[in-house]
Amino acid sequence: MTYLGDIWYQAGWPEEIDEGRMLARTILGRPLLFFRDADGRPAAVLDRCPHRFAPLSAGKYADGVVTCGYHGLAFDGAGRCAHNPHGKATGAIRVESFAAAERHQVLWVWMGDAALADPDRIPDLSFIDQTPPTAVIKGLMPTNAEYRLLIDNIMDLSHADYLHPTTLGGTFTDAKMTVLHDGDSITVEYSSIDCEPAPALRVMVPPPLRADVRVDARWHPPGVMVIGVSAHPTGTPPNPAADNFTLHSMTPETASSTHYFYCSTRPFQTDDVELSRSLKAILEQAFAAEDKPMLEKQQQRIGDADFWSLKPLLLPVDSGAVQVRRKLEALIEAQQADPPHQAARQA
Amino acid sequence: MTYLGDIWYQAGWPEEIDEGRMLARTILGRPLLFFRDADGRPAAVLDRCPHRFAPLSAGKYADGVVTCGYHGLAFDGAGRCAHNPHGKATGAIRVESFAAAERHQVLWVWMGDAALADPDRIPDLSFIDQTPPTAVIKGLMPTNAEYRLLIDNIMDLSHADYLHPTTLGGTFTDAKMTVLHDGDSITVEYSSIDCEPAPALRVMVPPPLRADVRVDARWHPPGVMVIGVSAHPTGTPPNPAADNFTLHSMTPETASSTHYFYCSTRPFQTDDVELSRSLKAILEQAFAAEDKPMLEKQQQRIGDADFWSLKPLLLPVDSGAVQVRRKLEALIEAQQADPPHQAARQA
Amino acid sequence: MTYLGDIWYQAGWPEEIDEGRMLARTILGRPLLFFRDADGRPAAVLDRCPHRFAPLSAGKYADGVVTCGYHGLAFDGAGRCAHNPHGKATGAIRVESFAAAERHQVLWVWMGDAALADPDRIPDLSFIDQTPPTAVIKGLMPTNAEYRLLIDNIMDLSHADYLHPTTLGGTFTDAKMTVLHDGDSITVEYSSIDCEPAPALRVMVPPPLRADVRVDARWHPPGVMVIGVSAHPTGTPPNPAADNFTLHSMTPETASSTHYFYCSTRPFQTDDVELSRSLKAILEQAFAAEDKPMLEKQQQRIGDADFWSLKPLLLPVDSGAVQVRRKLEALIEAQQADPPHQAARQA
Repeated sequence: MTYLGDIWYQAGWPEEIDEGRMLARTILGRPLLFFRDADGRPAAVLDRCPHRFAPLSAGKYADGVVTCGYHGLAFDGAGRCAHNPHGKATGAIRVESFAAAERHQVLWVWMGDAALADPDRIPDLSFIDQTPPTAVIKGLMPTNAEYRLLIDNIMDLSHADYLHPTTLGGTFTDAKMTVLHDGDSITVEYSSIDCEPAPALRVMVPPPLRADVRVDARWHPPGVMVIGVSAHPTGTPPNPAADNFTLHSMTPETASSTHYFYCSTRPFQTDDVELSRSLKAILEQAFAAEDKPMLEKQQQRIGDADFWSLKPLLLPVDSGAVQVRRKLEALIEAQQADPPHQAARQA
Repeated sequence: MTYLGDIWYQAGWPEEIDEGRMLARTILGRPLLFFRDADGRPAAVLDRCPHRFAPLSAGKYADGVVTCGYHGLAFDGAGRCAHNPHGKATGAIRVESFAAAERHQVLWVWMGDAALADPDRIPDLSFIDQTPPTAVIKGLMPTNAEYRLLIDNIMDLSHADYLHPTTLGGTFTDAKMTVLHDGDSITVEYSSIDCEPAPALRVMVPPPLRADVRVDARWHPPGVMVIGVSAHPTGTPPNPAADNFTLHSMTPETASSTHYFYCSTRPFQTDDVELSRSLKAILEQAFAAEDKPMLEKQQQRIGDADFWSLKPLLLPVDSGAVQVRRKLEALIEAQQADPPHQAARQA
Repeated sequence: MTYLGDIWYQAGWPEEIDEGRMLARTILGRPLLFFRDADGRPAAVLDRCPHRFAPLSAGKYADGVVTCGYHGLAFDGAGRCAHNPHGKATGAIRVESFAAAERHQVLWVWMGDAALADPDRIPDLSFIDQTPPTAVIKGLMPTNAEYRLLIDNIMDLSHADYLHPTTLGGTFTDAKMTVLHDGDSITVEYSSIDCEPAPALRVMVPPPLRADVRVDARWHPPGVMVIGVSAHPTGTPPNPAADNFTLHSMTPETASSTHYFYCSTRPFQTDDVELSRSLKAILEQAFAAEDKPMLEKQQQRIGDADFWSLKPLLLPVDSGAVQVRRKLEALIEAQQADPPHQAARQA
């Protein structure tokens, strides 16, 4: 599979490399190792010693340097040899390195040309920074399905009416749906006026009230999405301060598996840690019981076939998801047409 | 692997789709979904929604219609869209469907051109209909070996002398063997006069009597076989009313796995349900302990190789099984030579 | 993968085919069956009946003959049909056979042309014969890594300083290393004068004494290695009687898995069976906890790639291991250039 290379992917959470920990994670089919360099900045190298190809993650990390557990070669965050017990630590001894960054409480990696890795190209997720940590719920839900199926899942929220009828679903199929483009980003907006709110929204609009609901799913390439939810009793004015936002970030692990990172925030009861814990359990359980099995079975049915070759039936509700797929294809094609950068973008 | 397409395969048992149940089963490598249509007739569709390729079996069945659990599209037994919550249920919204039938208490599917699916081409298994249900034993024994190895196993019963010495074996190697052709069917007949009956036949010929035994294994393409057993004390006249018949039906699941359906009937103690239960347990246990491991190991040894490319040693006892293989190859070749039908017959 | 064919591989231990036992083991990707012929000599045949390809190991062994459990064909140690219940046991009925031998308490198999299988080409492992059985520790450590990675592991013992720091490591990186060629054999010699002995050598040089240590790793193609260890207190004369030797024998099971046979001997406390038992447990536990995980991860990182295509970094400590790889490649190339022998050497 060809992926977009010159772009930021979520690699994980910064705290996964705190307290002297390394993080081994396969991204775009390549085994990577994340750790903090001597200055505490995130670093990413290929998790494969250039000597005998042992995983560096089977070795040790200390003071910004990873040491291979097989023959003792050590590397810094830039991939340079920091110590060679068998001779000189020459410049020829290097492990492939990748640009990494930490922003909005997310750990990022740039899989293409590191010289182009501008942190300002990281999508704006400042809603995370603006939420007290006690009201932030985050995690990773590994899924054996390719990342574009998981993007489809978010960019066509009508599925909630069928897959999540007792929590999130109920209003999407009948909502007014609008697809908006903004640079390379695409947003699908669902607007429902005077509807019966989904069960999960009753906290904002208690029964028997009717609700005006707006849900935005905003996609940034390659797979970073934010869902914003706004709901208020019909006939009352909107209350932007009560809106809530959730990151749904899909990073390809392999051609048929995805790291599904999520980060949910809320503007109410923000210091209730117990509530955060219970919401996290509910959210992960819903995913495990409803989305994950469906997505993985979908992947099994598709197998190695190209999605379009199976001639999917197109419905109006697919509009946003299909535009996202087309945009992603166009970006990959543009990159492919740029030969010097090709090599780094295949896995 | 290329299979015979325009032919009936056993898909299961009708009761597997009774009481509002759907049945998901892969046949010739294709995931199928069986259910009863609004008129109660068996129906078969591809178990993959044409929209986003979720398995329809992960949805719901009611009143002859299956509804996809992902976005709510519904289909009837002919594969037509019965409901589309996102727009009109147009004729363009279809899921691939297959001809299905119910006859002789067996559920059948026709994997080729449905227009040619004549139920009268289903082999005559009326011995099942003529047996009181209390004396019918049936089941499915999943086997990780390709279906032709399982056909060989039935069409060369000499294996019973070595693999089942304490139950069915003892007389086949020394029997007079005859191979008979009847249209596309092939029968191997084993005749043993004045022999010591196999342990399993002692119920018909108790010790110390000698027996005259005739066993017929009749094959119908692609893998439907009936074994008839006739045994009576030597010197007494045959008693056709005491003959018993067993269906051995091999349906390819994939290129290296088979749905092995069996249905055993008996003409004695026909209302003894307890006996039926215990005979079923004995039969399945014998298969699980003796045939299945041998067949699966055989498959492992063959791997992906073409059977003939391994130059199997041919013995006189192989004669029936080899003629069956040759007939099957000829039927497939004839079908391959008929281009409009090819596409439907590959998986 | 292409292997060296006309050479002896360790197949196991002679006692694995004692007491009427057969031994099924895959070697160079081929399923083999080992047993004793009517004269008690080791025999090896393909573990696949030439009739219907059932594994002969699923049948029975008695009196030097294996009988297929599926249809009763029997074969002797030379692969000739010893009994055919369905006709004559003609010379045309054969199973492929291989030369086998028993020497130095090791079971050997020759995978190439049996006519060239000279037992005198078996490496000299007489150190095993010269050790009382009570002081011999032997076993098999199955490893999911290709055999050349396991050969590298032994021929570059510097890894012990990093992977086994609490037992065997400590002195290799700083030792004087010499690589010696002797016919097709290659020896890497590590000499450390006046060093702190590795923890495992304290039994020979108790603290606080300093030691003179010499370790030889001698490789015979394709993967038979003997490590000899000599250690004595610095300033005292060497004591050859105290040297100990261990066989490390790597036989490819498949392209990515290896039978790692070891046989360790000791010259002290040779009648202490309890000590042997505990040393065996320590040795196998160290392998399981340290070498095996590293080797298997190394294999995962390499995947199907050709080792050299990944451009491994070459360090001075790799010198012996690289010379062994080059020698092995030259031997395989020479064999490849000899067309009549090619067929038998591929799996």
